[in-house]
Formats: sequence, C-alpha cells, structure tokens
Amino acid sequence: MCKFVQKLWYNEGMVVFTRGFEIAGVSAGMKKSGRNDVAVIKNTGPNKVAAGVFTTNRVHAAPVKYSRLALAKTGGNAEAVLINSGCANACTGERGYEHTVESAQYLAQLLNIEDTNRVLVASTGSIGKFIEMDKFLPGILRATEQLSTSPQNEFAVASAICTTDTVEKMAVYNRSTDTISSGKTLEELASATSEENNWKIGGISKGAGMIAPQLATMISVITTDAVLTSAQADEALKYAVEYSFNRIDADGCMSTNDTVLLLSSGASGIVPDLDEFKEKLQGVAYALARQMIADTEGSSHDIEVKVINALEEVHALNVARSVARSNLLKCAIFGSDPNWGRILASVGVVSEADAVFDAKNIDVALNGVWICKNSGIGEPRELVKISENRAVSIVVDLKVGSKSATILTNDLTYGYVKENAEYTT
Amino acid sequence: MCKFVQKLWYNEGMVVFTRGFEIAGVSAGMKKSGRNDVAVIKNTGPNKVAAGVFTTNRVHAAPVKYSRLALAKTGGNAEAVLINSGCANACTGERGYEHTVESAQYLAQLLNIEDTNRVLVASTGSIGKFIEMDKFLPGILRATEQLSTSPQNEFAVASAICTTDTVEKMAVYNRSTDTISSGKTLEELASATSEENNWKIGGISKGAGMIAPQLATMISVITTDAVLTSAQADEALKYAVEYSFNRIDADGCMSTNDTVLLLSSGASGIVPDLDEFKEKLQGVAYALARQMIADTEGSSHDIEVKVINALEEVHALNVARSVARSNLLKCAIFGSDPNWGRILASVGVVSEADAVFDAKNIDVALNGVWICKNSGIGEPRELVKISENRAVSIVVDLKVGSKSATILTNDLTYGYVKENAEYTT
Repeated sequence: MCKFVQKLWYNEGMVVFTRGFEIAGVSAGMKKSGRNDVAVIKNTGPNKVAAGVFTTNRVHAAPVKYSRLALAKTGGNAEAVLINSGCANACTGERGYEHTVESAQYLAQLLNIEDTNRVLVASTGSIGKFIEMDKFLPGILRATEQLSTSPQNEFAVASAICTTDTVEKMAVYNRSTDTISSGKTLEELASATSEENNWKIGGISKGAGMIAPQLATMISVITTDAVLTSAQADEALKYAVEYSFNRIDADGCMSTNDTVLLLSSGASGIVPDLDEFKEKLQGVAYALARQMIADTEGSSHDIEVKVINALEEVHALNVARSVARSNLLKCAIFGSDPNWGRILASVGVVSEADAVFDAKNIDVALNGVWICKNSGIGEPRELVKISENRAVSIVVDLKVGSKSATILTNDLTYGYVKENAEYTT
Repeated sequence: MCKFVQKLWYNEGMVVFTRGFEIAGVSAGMKKSGRNDVAVIKNTGPNKVAAGVFTTNRVHAAPVKYSRLALAKTGGNAEAVLINSGCANACTGERGYEHTVESAQYLAQLLNIEDTNRVLVASTGSIGKFIEMDKFLPGILRATEQLSTSPQNEFAVASAICTTDTVEKMAVYNRSTDTISSGKTLEELASATSEENNWKIGGISKGAGMIAPQLATMISVITTDAVLTSAQADEALKYAVEYSFNRIDADGCMSTNDTVLLLSSGASGIVPDLDEFKEKLQGVAYALARQMIADTEGSSHDIEVKVINALEEVHALNVARSVARSNLLKCAIFGSDPNWGRILASVGVVSEADAVFDAKNIDVALNGVWICKNSGIGEPRELVKISENRAVSIVVDLKVGSKSATILTNDLTYGYVKENAEYTT
C-alpha cells in the first residue's frame, strides 16, 4: 500500500481528490491478480459539472461510446463515475454496450440518481472479451457501501484503475500554496493537504504502454472544487489534454478506451479565473502524463523530443512525433548509442505538407550536445552521456521559424517486448 | 561462402546476373568485420540502359542525390554501378557529396567511361560518418581488376552490399523455364542456370531492419539481357518496386539510402513483351523482398497483413500499413498471442479520409481462423496456432468493396531490440 496512506490515515479530508467528492475502490475479482478493479467516484456537489475527452480511435469501447453520449445528453453534467479494470469491454458489440448501460443503471439506482446519463463509465484492460457482470455488479454494490473521503480510499481508487501500471499515478494542484504535487513521494503529496479555504485540482490516472497521440490506453479522472460551468470545464479540459496526455507517445499505438474526465463540485464556492484554471489543470494533467511515461512498460529511459524554430506549432509536433516513433532510435537510446543519424532519418520522413524545413540545414542536440549541425556531423559523439540518467533530451532545430512542440516517449527495451509478448488478451 | 558457388564453380556463365554484365566484389577494409564492402557491376552491352528508384526520405544520402541526378542527365543510361557497404555516406554534407563524385570519377576513369554520369553509386551502412576514401579508392581499383562473369564473383558482389544481413539475397527469372528462383537453396538457383537463348532477369539485394514504405535500408541491383528502352526500364522498375519493396515494412523506419537499380544490357537480342517483362520483374523483386523480410533483424515470424474488400486499393494499403506497424501487435505475435484486439485497434486509428470502413463491421482472420467477426468476438482464440510456423497470416476484411493490398512485416522480438541497441553509428 502506498506509504502516504498510512502516514495520512488520520488526516482530515482527502489528499488528491477535492472537496465535494466521495470515493471508493474495491476488488470484484475481475483482475487475475486479485487487485482492486472497481472504482466509484461520487460528486456530492453542490455542482455536478463534468467534461470528457475520449479516444479518437474509430474502434472504441462500449463505455467510451456510452459516456460520450451521456455527456452530450446532460449537457456536461455527471453525479458519479464508474471505472473498472481487467476488461476494456471493447470489440464486444451490442452485448458489451448493454453491459455498460446495465452497470451505469445499477450505480444510478444505488446512488438514487434519477437520470442514468448522469453516471459516466470507463473501462480498461483486455480487448475482445465480455465483462463478467456477475462479478462487476456485486463489486459496484460494495464500492458504493464504502464511499468516503478517507485518504485510504484515494489509494484504493488509484489502484483500482491500474492494469499493467507498476505504480499508482496521482497529482494535485493546491492554489493556497500554488504548488503542483505528483504522487511520487509522501512529502510531495502531503504538501497538497492544505486546509486553507481555496480551490484545488486533484486527479489520478493509469496508463502504461499503448500510449499514443489523442490519448493512451489511459484513464484519468481529475476533480476540482472550483466553481465552473459545463462549458468552462469542457474548454479547460480540452486545453489541458492537448498539452499533456496528447503529448506523450510510448509506442504509437492508440487505444480503444482512452478517457479523461474532469469533475467539478464547486464545493470551494470560488469562481476561478478561467485562464489561470486552464494553466493549473494543464499542470496537473502534465504531471500525471509524466508519471505515465515514467511507468511505461519496460522502459529504461524517458525521452523528451523537443522540436524548435518550426514555422508552425503543428509542424514541430509532426516532426517530434515522427522522431518519438522511430523504433530504431528508441533501441539506440536503450543501448546508450547517440545515433543522431536515426533522428535525422526520422525527421526526413515527414512530408513537406506536414512540416516545412530544409533537410540539409537541421541541427540536433542529444542531452545538450549538438552532435548534428546543418544535417551533418557536429560535436563529437563521445561527449554525449546517455546511460547515466533516465531522462534523455533530444532537441531538433528546424531553423525556419519560432514555433516549438515537445513529445515525451520512451526507449524500446527487452522489457517492453517481454511485457507485450506475454500480456494476453 | 554460399554453397551453390562451390558447386557451380565451373559452370559456364553466371547464375544470377545475366549476359552482358561483368561483376566483382572485394573487401576494402571499410567494414569492421573485414567482409566484402565494395562491389562493381559493369554493363558490357550492347545496350547500357538503366533505371532507378530511390528513397523518398527528405534526408537522403550523397549517393542517392548523385545517382538520381546522373540518371536524369543521361536520360536513363549507365555503364557501371559502384556500391559500398560499411558507410552510408549520409548526413555528410558537401564533403560527403564530393566523396561520391570522386569515387564515380575514379571508376569511370578505370573503365574508360567518358561521362562520369554513366556511373551510378549506392552506399549503405552507418549514417553520419565520412567514407574512408583512402580505403575506398584502392578497393575500387581491385574490384575493376577482378571484373568477370564467374559465379564466384556473384556471391562476392551479393555479400559486398550486405550490412547486418545474415544471408545474401539473390533471385532469378529464367524465361526458358519460366521459373523464378530465389537464393535460398542451391537447387533453386541452379535451375536458373539455363543456357537457352532467351532473356533472363536476375538480381541481388540487401536489407534488414529499417525497412519501411517507399523502400528500406536496402539496395538492390537487378540485371536483364532483355532489350529495353530507358523509358520501358523506368516504367517496369517503378511498377515492380511498388508491388514488392514498397510492400514490406519491418519497423516503419525509412532509410536515407534506399536504392533500386535496373540495368539492361540487351545481350539476348530479344525484345520482350513489356507487360510480361513487368510481371516477371515484379516477381524477381518480390522474391528479393521476401528474403529481406525473412532476414529482418531478430525477427522470429514473417507476418503477412492482407486487407481485403476495401473501397480503394490505397485504403487497403493504409490499413495494412497501420496494422503492420503496431508494436503491440508485433510483440503479441512474438509471444504467440492471437491478440486480435490489437489488430482492430490498429485498424481503427486509420482516418476516414485514408480508409472507408464501418468500425463496427470488420472481420479479422489470424492464420485462417476468423477470431473477430463484425468487430466482435468470433471463433475461439484457442483454434489459432502461431508458434509452430515462421509464417503468420493476418486477413482484415473491411467488407465495403473489392480492393485488396498486402504488407509483409515481422514480429517485434528481443533480437530486434538487441541488434538495434548494439548497432553503433
């Protein structure tokens, strides 16, 4: 169990989730491991605002289809979120969709929510198998019975949404201290447990592998006690996701289930400045995204690919994605080989329509050493140190403009192959 | 040394290369391994027709830039081809380009070729380092001294263009027997050593890893003694490449050096039917492409991704490429896991502009078992056998048209990671 839970056992109120929410996570036995696999997050208000961003994969899971529709019907409101791991309920057809609706109806009934559309659902796990309703429904019942505001439950919820994740992922922004804390150490998160009367943003996420643009095999639920309208929540979430979860790319594979939800209870009674809120929300989402990359299946390095001096931001983004997806480069980084030729080759495959640059005039820096200048040999490769640190920095200077973009990815390792060769549908 | 060489030592004429060519391969010491790294192929005529297809990577090597230009200047003629391995001469700027020109000039001088543009050059190996001219030029001299039509030299040439390849790759079409033979067994190739007075097509290739659309880290030289005009050679080669080398995708990484050359000596004196020639040339190119996939770095399975019943061929191709590039799927195949969910997920990422299909109505067969029907659960996964054979067949039925396309790829293995982590620039 996560250390901070024991320490904060008697702490008043929750660490990660904000005022206006009750949560619970339980094991319904759908995960082979026996770990928690059902989470319920209830918005106790006063407001019941919700926004969602979902995978753009044309093949998407039943809960994605359901929740997208539900949010549209309610105009951006939700009273509860139901999440399960162990089964993605994807590629399960009509029957799978009925399972999602049935589970939402059951939770609505248990929580006396009149409109089932005010219950959102997210699932993660194996694709192409039916969810075990005989285990899922009793799990939902037990979760509702355990709904509370204890830090213990926060960890139970964070673990209930995990699949191949090795650590729970949590992040908090506390406006009273203006600090963003991620769930790596007890101290970081404890610093967020302020009792000051101010608004907060706090959330959890899961995701390791299959992390690609327009989200990952990921689920994230972010709560806030700031007062937001549905339109504001939607605008803020779209912005935050674009500059966080959409900027990580572990293996170029896009999931069928990706779901990011923002829930606002308004329990602080404070109406935030929207621009400030958007920035802080993006900060929390980015902190979660970084934890996801750091926990990507089998990786040994986190690689930050930054493309600078592009004509348009989208050009920088296209080039960064191309570099971040080069298996050859990702293997080279794993091998601590400063193989800048593979970087340049992956830049060169980007079409002129997708990025303006002179292929003969590109500079590349690896961990601060400009080993490639004007698309040719630069500083000595011997100067580049890769093996020492987990963090690897790649900078590609297109030298045609002033726009930039950054993608986070990993190296390609034996561990990645092992995990994904043995992980069975 | 390849077995068939010893057996065919005294055989009249060459096995793979056709009449009208003299060849030689030597070691100039540019490869750490000491293996052959310089090859010269001389067209003795009577015709000196040549056509080329090159990488579309905007970052391309000096020899690619040079040879593309040379072919344009001569209107599709060449008297000799110079190939080196061990150094790609890519990302080497002006100096690298001068090295290529200098080497072409030197060979032209040695072979009394007045116009240097009638010498084509191809290089393969590490990117971002200069070619060692002090070794390269003496190697060129020795190669020209050894030019002959002996089968021994055929193997010397085939090995001289290899980098991480574990086997030489050769294929022949013999019209007198109407058979295509690839360089796997002695018998296959020997069957091509007919003395009949008819035209032949024969060639070699190298390539393992970094194999992606619009060619691979690959070099291929195909010769024929059929009588062709430059325009016919160009048309035939473009067609053959599109349906062979452009349909294999080992790791989605496109090289800076990919070069495919067709040389026609016209020594048979026979003018072929162009459509027949195109088909046979495509057959030879495809036989070479298959050998490249079979030899891709560290792979344990060859995966054929066939997309059927698409509205347009390009739609089928886009979907097949997306599936062939899913690291998650490629790992699953390595693990003998019939993970059709990952196949469907990789289909779903293809945009509606790139492929028309109903995401809820796709069938998928894995090694003949339709494990996915109507985007849902199909026949039992237990029926699928993967581990037994190297060949794996994936069929995706889009059910919206009648067009189809096939991409060959590999599984993603520890071996791939190892090879590409340790292969140093």
